[in-house]
This record gives sequence, structure tokens and C-alpha cells, in this order.
Amino acid sequence: MTIGKVTLLGAGPGDLDLLTVRAVKTLARADVLMLDDLANPDIVTLAPQARVVRVGKRGGCRSTPQDFIQRLMRRYALAGRYVVRVKGGEALLFGRAGEEIDFLRAAGIEVDIINGVTSALAAAASLGASLTHRDHCRGVTFVTAHAHDHSEPDWRALAATGTTLAIYMGMSRVDSIAGNLLQHLAAGTPAAVVQWAGSAHERRLVTRLDQLAADAHAFGFASPSVILIGHALAHAQADAVALASAA
Amino acid sequence: MTIGKVTLLGAGPGDLDLLTVRAVKTLARADVLMLDDLANPDIVTLAPQARVVRVGKRGGCRSTPQDFIQRLMRRYALAGRYVVRVKGGEALLFGRAGEEIDFLRAAGIEVDIINGVTSALAAAASLGASLTHRDHCRGVTFVTAHAHDHSEPDWRALAATGTTLAIYMGMSRVDSIAGNLLQHLAAGTPAAVVQWAGSAHERRLVTRLDQLAADAHAFGFASPSVILIGHALAHAQADAVALASAA
Repeated sequence: MTIGKVTLLGAGPGDLDLLTVRAVKTLARADVLMLDDLANPDIVTLAPQARVVRVGKRGGCRSTPQDFIQRLMRRYALAGRYVVRVKGGEALLFGRAGEEIDFLRAAGIEVDIINGVTSALAAAASLGASLTHRDHCRGVTFVTAHAHDHSEPDWRALAATGTTLAIYMGMSRVDSIAGNLLQHLAAGTPAAVVQWAGSAHERRLVTRLDQLAADAHAFGFASPSVILIGHALAHAQADAVALASAA
Repeated sequence: MTIGKVTLLGAGPGDLDLLTVRAVKTLARADVLMLDDLANPDIVTLAPQARVVRVGKRGGCRSTPQDFIQRLMRRYALAGRYVVRVKGGEALLFGRAGEEIDFLRAAGIEVDIINGVTSALAAAASLGASLTHRDHCRGVTFVTAHAHDHSEPDWRALAATGTTLAIYMGMSRVDSIAGNLLQHLAAGTPAAVVQWAGSAHERRLVTRLDQLAADAHAFGFASPSVILIGHALAHAQADAVALASAA
């Protein structure tokens, strides 16, 4: 029997038409779909022949252990199946793709990757704001607030770069994040929060750093949300503010 | 007459099947395509009815001035046309989307944005390496080496973040970039260069920081290339090295 293969596929932020054409073609050839719970569940309609395995993981909730997911992918691939591991957003930003690639390669299984749209960029598209507006910055940093050793990111170093900050998995500790950043960035630094970016459930908030935590609470923002901070956000669309207020 | 509209569309790194489904649908509805020279020219086959205007810009080469591009978009949109501005990679990372949005909004023209795959992530997919492998880092910084005031990025601050660095438009000054980073990062820090990431012409180099500049020259890497630096690149596929050596 031939060994199968695994594709790590970035499903984008929600709307199925934000999948790449390559992702759509790949889904149609899958034998097994392993579905992250941040991916749009309707994605299964693009793989009608595939066995679907739901392997959701979410901080603080009941979840499928990472090593179980990895062993399951290995088992299907070694049995000759074509496994497509569907991840919300971009396959190579957060989401433990690195560990999955290491594990599968160690078992001699071929792994390839299909990019997807990550939520910070989908959020920026909705806000109508470049994350690297050259009047304000020369780059953007994507960082997770959630580390496996439970440490905090080095906010001082991040602030010192002058890049726009796109903070993933930060909503549950938005008070601490904003408090830390206020020690290094001006109180009036533009900030935004987008929940379920790029999906039909999307909600947007445009504010400033010293009001970020209070506004996020007042408007009931929760996971999954991306937090964007920096002067490039000064260009975020005003109708996004109205939308948040109406929520 | 109704005012038209402008969509800034990220065409991804080259291969047309890395376009999103939304991008493909949008191209089919365009009246005017304004084409960046970093976008794959075959993209015009997806918009057979559109007038095509080539507005390439490339550092150091003959190019279309930014204000001319902006005025042309405005003219078509005010004449009621649906203008799709096609940008290589992701529409909201570098590429002056911020200025174009500001300019068009000031003229009362509706602007929307369709995300694309940016070259650093396409490069990471080819290298088979997560840019945020959680054993090594908690994020990634996308930065341009090319600023309009000709200043250098603050390499010390960037290095201090501990994030993977994805450096755009850096190949023409790779000696200076590597030299500066060597003052703040270990000589053996893994590094990679990918030219024409995500296209049929792609070339990959996997090396280390203290050999980055020499290897990039030896193997003839040139623009457009993305430079990736950080311990997450330790997982870049060995066959990428072989590919560079064979070049």
C-alpha cells in the first residue's frame, strides 16, 4: 500500500469565497478532512466525498488534545489516505502547524501547505486600513498573547519596533495587554478590535489604546477576535465605529 | 451618471490558483484592470472584458508615478467604471494601499479590499516551515527595508522582539541588513531567501545569518525576494537547500 499524504490548508477567516482556488481544488480530492473549530463548518460542502473528523481546540474549552490529532493524521496517512487538515485563517500563522509538520515528517509522511487569509488581514480589509501605511510605520507584527509557558509577550520590545501590532488570542486578557502597552505607547494610539473577521458574524470596534479594554467589554467583544494597535489604524473606517455602537 | 468604485485586489504571489475565489469573481466583473508589475500578467485572462492598464512600479526602474496611478483610478471611477487595482501579494501589506485608499475616499469614491497571499507566507509554505513555530517564537514581523525617507529600520528593536523577521524589498541591501542584524542576533540564526515565492520561477535558499549575504550573492538571488530570519526557519525543508545549490 502506498503511504498517503497530509495537506495543511488555511481556510481563511470564514467566508468560503476567501478560500484560494487551490484550496477548493484540494478539498475536492481529500479522503479525510480534519476540521479545526475556527474553520467555517460549511467547508465540508466542498469535500462531499471525504470523511469528516472534527478536532476543535479552543483555549479553556473541552478540546481534542494535540497529540491525538497528530496521531490520527498519521494513522490515516499511513493507511494511504489523503488527509486535509483544515485550519482557520492562514495555515502557517499560529495554530501549531510547526509541530504537526515535525511530527508527520518524522513518520516519513509528505506534508504540504496551502496558504489562507489570516484574520488580522481580513480585519484590516473590513476596516479599510493598510496595516503598513507608509506615513505611519514600516511594518506589522503578528503576535499571540497566548504562549504555552503562560508568559507575556515582551510588550516593551514590540512597542519599540514602531510596527503595527496585530494581537491574536488576546481578548481574554485585553485589560492586561492594554495596560502593559500604555506604559510604552501614547494613550491616544489608534486601536481596533475585529471579532469573527471576514465572516458573516463580523463585528468591528475602532477606538484608542486607553479606551480599548473598556470599549471591548462595553460592546461585548469575545474570542475569536484580533486586536490591532498603531497609527495606521487612524485610517480605519468610521462606519466601523457606528457598527460597534449599534451592537 | 453613477460614480464607479475601486477594489484593491491582492493577486497573491504568482500562481493564479493562489487567488481567492472572491478575487476570481471580482476580476470577471471589472471594467478596468490596473496591473502592478509584481502581479502575474496572465491574470488578464480572468478579466477578458476589461480594459487593461499596466502601471508597474519597481525600485530603480522606469515606473509609473504613484500620483498618476491614483488620478487614473479616480478618473475611471468618476466616469462610472468598476476599477480593479491588482497588486502582487496581499493588498494591505506594503504596496501603498494606504495612500490609494486615502486619495480615493477624499474624492468620494467607494473603495473595498480583497485579501491575497503575501510572499512571506507563500515562501514559508514552500519551505514547509511555520513562521510562528511555538518552540521558537511567539510571532512574526513583516517589515520593508525600503522606506520613503531612505532610513533603515530599527534592527535592534526588531531583533529584540524575538519574532521571526520577514523582510520585504531587502535583496538590494542584503549585506547591510545582515551586517546590522549580526550585531543583535547570533551568527548561526537560521535564515532563508525565497525569490518569486509561490510562482513557477520560485527559487529558495536556506542558510544562516552570517552566510546570508554571501550565499544570496553566490546563488544570484535578486528582487523580488523575501528574506526570512529566525529560529523557526530551522525547520525549513532541506530539499530547499539542494534546490538553491543546483541553481
